[in-house]
Amino acid sequence: MENALLSIDALWVMLSAILVIFMQAGFALLEAGSTRMKNAGHVAGKQLLSFSLVGLVFWAVGYGIAFGDSLNGFLGTSGWLLNLPQAEGEVPLEIFFLFQMAFAAVSAAIAWGGFAERAKLGVYIIFGILFTAIIYPVVAHWIWGDGGWLAEAGKQDFAGSTVVHLTGGVAALVATLMLGPRIGKYTSDGKPNAIPGHNQVYTVLGVAIIWLGWFGFNPGSTLSVADGFFGYVALTTYLAAAAGALAALGTVKLALGKADVPMMLNGVLAGLVAITAACAFVEPWAAVIVGAIAGSLTVFTSVYFEKKGIDDPIYAFSVHGIAGIWGTLSTGFFASPRLVEITETGQPGLFYGGGIHQLIVQAEGVLAAGAFVGVTSFIILWILNKTMGLRVTEEDEVMGLDLSEHGTYGYPEQMAQETGSSQGPTV
Amino acid sequence: MENALLSIDALWVMLSAILVIFMQAGFALLEAGSTRMKNAGHVAGKQLLSFSLVGLVFWAVGYGIAFGDSLNGFLGTSGWLLNLPQAEGEVPLEIFFLFQMAFAAVSAAIAWGGFAERAKLGVYIIFGILFTAIIYPVVAHWIWGDGGWLAEAGKQDFAGSTVVHLTGGVAALVATLMLGPRIGKYTSDGKPNAIPGHNQVYTVLGVAIIWLGWFGFNPGSTLSVADGFFGYVALTTYLAAAAGALAALGTVKLALGKADVPMMLNGVLAGLVAITAACAFVEPWAAVIVGAIAGSLTVFTSVYFEKKGIDDPIYAFSVHGIAGIWGTLSTGFFASPRLVEITETGQPGLFYGGGIHQLIVQAEGVLAAGAFVGVTSFIILWILNKTMGLRVTEEDEVMGLDLSEHGTYGYPEQMAQETGSSQGPTV
Amino acid sequence: MENALLSIDALWVMLSAILVIFMQAGFALLEAGSTRMKNAGHVAGKQLLSFSLVGLVFWAVGYGIAFGDSLNGFLGTSGWLLNLPQAEGEVPLEIFFLFQMAFAAVSAAIAWGGFAERAKLGVYIIFGILFTAIIYPVVAHWIWGDGGWLAEAGKQDFAGSTVVHLTGGVAALVATLMLGPRIGKYTSDGKPNAIPGHNQVYTVLGVAIIWLGWFGFNPGSTLSVADGFFGYVALTTYLAAAAGALAALGTVKLALGKADVPMMLNGVLAGLVAITAACAFVEPWAAVIVGAIAGSLTVFTSVYFEKKGIDDPIYAFSVHGIAGIWGTLSTGFFASPRLVEITETGQPGLFYGGGIHQLIVQAEGVLAAGAFVGVTSFIILWILNKTMGLRVTEEDEVMGLDLSEHGTYGYPEQMAQETGSSQGPTV
Repeated sequence: MENALLSIDALWVMLSAILVIFMQAGFALLEAGSTRMKNAGHVAGKQLLSFSLVGLVFWAVGYGIAFGDSLNGFLGTSGWLLNLPQAEGEVPLEIFFLFQMAFAAVSAAIAWGGFAERAKLGVYIIFGILFTAIIYPVVAHWIWGDGGWLAEAGKQDFAGSTVVHLTGGVAALVATLMLGPRIGKYTSDGKPNAIPGHNQVYTVLGVAIIWLGWFGFNPGSTLSVADGFFGYVALTTYLAAAAGALAALGTVKLALGKADVPMMLNGVLAGLVAITAACAFVEPWAAVIVGAIAGSLTVFTSVYFEKKGIDDPIYAFSVHGIAGIWGTLSTGFFASPRLVEITETGQPGLFYGGGIHQLIVQAEGVLAAGAFVGVTSFIILWILNKTMGLRVTEEDEVMGLDLSEHGTYGYPEQMAQETGSSQGPTV
Repeated sequence: MENALLSIDALWVMLSAILVIFMQAGFALLEAGSTRMKNAGHVAGKQLLSFSLVGLVFWAVGYGIAFGDSLNGFLGTSGWLLNLPQAEGEVPLEIFFLFQMAFAAVSAAIAWGGFAERAKLGVYIIFGILFTAIIYPVVAHWIWGDGGWLAEAGKQDFAGSTVVHLTGGVAALVATLMLGPRIGKYTSDGKPNAIPGHNQVYTVLGVAIIWLGWFGFNPGSTLSVADGFFGYVALTTYLAAAAGALAALGTVKLALGKADVPMMLNGVLAGLVAITAACAFVEPWAAVIVGAIAGSLTVFTSVYFEKKGIDDPIYAFSVHGIAGIWGTLSTGFFASPRLVEITETGQPGLFYGGGIHQLIVQAEGVLAAGAFVGVTSFIILWILNKTMGLRVTEEDEVMGLDLSEHGTYGYPEQMAQETGSSQGPTV
Repeated sequence: MENALLSIDALWVMLSAILVIFMQAGFALLEAGSTRMKNAGHVAGKQLLSFSLVGLVFWAVGYGIAFGDSLNGFLGTSGWLLNLPQAEGEVPLEIFFLFQMAFAAVSAAIAWGGFAERAKLGVYIIFGILFTAIIYPVVAHWIWGDGGWLAEAGKQDFAGSTVVHLTGGVAALVATLMLGPRIGKYTSDGKPNAIPGHNQVYTVLGVAIIWLGWFGFNPGSTLSVADGFFGYVALTTYLAAAAGALAALGTVKLALGKADVPMMLNGVLAGLVAITAACAFVEPWAAVIVGAIAGSLTVFTSVYFEKKGIDDPIYAFSVHGIAGIWGTLSTGFFASPRLVEITETGQPGLFYGGGIHQLIVQAEGVLAAGAFVGVTSFIILWILNKTMGLRVTEEDEVMGLDLSEHGTYGYPEQMAQETGSSQGPTV
């Protein structure tokens, strides 16, 4: 690789991988902050468990399915344990692997939102292995694999609104439906109770770290520096997130009358999720619109699902699923000819006279990926439910997963104050 | 940009922008940790609101005023929505924008310190817009804009002791004076009560993240890699911060008899603020002196202002204003001929036989920027006070801004313990 | 340095330094989370004090001892205040200094684990100065210095399992033995009581940040980009950490029957510590084994030392000492001919037909470094104990170091609830 431009690309992708890896800390904080004190150690700790598991499985199996030699565009069939030749003139394989592994780990982190505060630790482990070995890499192969059938169709998903976010979001939705609402979430006549997260500072810090990581997620997906396009992608990514925050805050203030902080934070995330597909295809003004619509949508759908009896504790489906769908579709409207030429992917969108061709391709990708992830997640969880059971006992759930699954509170001193238990330090 | 050296510069400025952006998380933690539990969600959450607002406004308006075609050296008049041609041989415009936007967002974050625990959310929004559209970019234009009048005068402010820190610090001072002290800060005979921040771990983490971000802030301001000078700037930046920490700790121990942790942390920040102007102009030994003096000064001025009835909850003016002034002036003493030649800015300082020329230029910059920011901040806040009112009601302030401005505590479970309220989870 | 490849290397080492510096925040959180609320401000705050102190001392003295002209391979004797010529064709001296300083600061951070919750603040300051001026740099000179005697012997310690981790871990062990157990750690008949850390979310975040920093620690130690080898090192580093996490979780579940979160996190760290020597010498499959063994070992040794009456509050010796020894020895088994050729250091290991030559060299390094650090740490702490005393009074320890050493609780509001004291805010 004794070549300056290629070295620069290698360094950039490595640093992007590091940024995306840092998002694991963001998800740990976001999810811990959005749930209750009695589950905090479990919720945060399982994130590093997940990051460890996902990486080893993706190294052994998942990467090969996502990026190995294609079997009819449906899945890869080589590259187990990263046994692949280094392609001439490309970023070192190990670096590209770390970048892609970090994406898989984000997708898994999203899925965990739907399991929060009631699933058994063993379910995380087994579902995590299968999600990373099968579900995620198959979708990645379709859209990003060499010869993947949606890639061939010209699907525009620059950094994974569909691959990463819709996949994680749909798995979360299936899990949340199969696990059912947390104890106490609904009154006997079906009205939702608020179960606010215990620490908004964690939630803010988590979202800040995730936002930071996204500067690797989207701009890093250019895989190159010399044309400067990574800067453009960083700009659209930023603008959509900012617009998502303001739109969500405005929406929740108008709709519910309160400037809800977690909803604003979900607006940041929704803006980021939506622009992830579109960041390289749309103009800056369109990025603002894409992000703003995503931020607004996430508020309405969160409230709607909650009313309909779906207890998605971290709003994983509203944030990653709905915004993932919207973001994927958005290029069907806003993809500009100039940018389609630069990225050499798909066609311009409806608003640029491109007709509905690209919109159909985008919708096709959403439906195919959504259906595949929904069905496979359902099958896996159904089997797990029949065999080991998905959910902890009622007693354990009320006690909290820190004690029931790990034997110690995450906050022993504070919980001792709250519960009067002897779990606190003896001194 | 198919040029290796320019690509490297682009990558470095992009990564520096990312580091400076991360400082938003640092400010969220620093400010939340330094205030009370009842305001924590509000304080942390408004930081991402601010980051969203600042970026959109700076993109639409502020960048053009700071870096557009100069009108008599006073303000820029082009480049709205970043509509500017890409200059040949320079870092991509989008990347330079993100770097500068991150600076504007830091300046706003500093200003918010003066509003803490008593200003209305709406005031943050409106003042944030005007600060980013007018106040900050005008000062930036004077000192960093092509043709800015202080730039022409040879003002040395390498990374913004004046542009970023004094600007934010003066706005904070005006706000804190106009808002008045927090309820309970002073006894009826005017003696200050301690209102300690609720979480020093957050404060430590916040300062650690801000310190980290400064490795982008100062060294990134070289905008280039090949001459290796960014390493030199990183070294002086580090040394000043370390010296600031030790000097502040020693000072507070000698003066007040206790090794106060928040004061030591303010010493880190003061050292960083002071070296921000000087990092490229002074020798390493001088960086240690500049930082140590800043660290000591911040302790004395914090105590002094507090005694004089000025309740600046995060000590924003002592840390960013005073150290910003000192840092700006310091090159008038310590700028070395060797480094002035490298940076091609201004003249050597008094201690190198340069006479008082540079010191006068530096003082001029401080006075002009301080006066401009002071007057404009006052006018804006005066109008806001007359129209919507700056401060929440007494009842709301006592209840806390989490409930009054956002409808939910940031720590619902812990506050339920403290207040016996029903805000906690129902289960 | 007007040379693209060298510029890229300079940028990479700078960014690696920044990543390793960020580990200070990780250690602050890890240690604060693993100790009690009454000490949280002290524990977190002393980390930035340490980072300030270490850097200034390493700049003034330590770097010269580590990397100055060698006196018989035992210590360096030039380069005080970084007065050294810039070597042609190498990364700028200031950048290499920052990278090495960050390593020294990590080693000190590890040592502090053994002092936690009972040592005087002054002991941190004086031991910190001497550790950074003498202990750490001598070991660094032996193994990494130009002409160091262990370097000449072909010792394989790519990024410092011995230099950084064993050194810090042994100092921690000496401190923990000389300070003795925390009050209440053992019952009157010598059985250990659990003193759980107060916040597992901090611990998780701390470990996540440390893991992140390790992507600079190991891959950055290549000091170069163009051959792409830094990507390989990042891969082995990741795999060992992930394997360490899973092995530790499995071990603690099998051995103690609970899926203990802090033990899993220690498994991450142990995997990282072990692979730090080996990352550039072993194949990916071997990295998994090295990490898994480290993760398992850390669980067993933690429990063993605790039973034997050694109260090492953060398990610093088990995590950094034991895994440091294992990692150093591991290349004696697993170093592959292919990688030894690339790194041009030492010989292949036992499992590749290299005989026990390399294993002996590795063991020699462990024994020499361990003995030197143990003896010098003991002498320094013995003198400090005789003069100023190492440990706070019993009363102060029970009250907590936040109040006794710094005059304010780190969590004034929460401690007021817990203790009924008047330390909380007056309003």
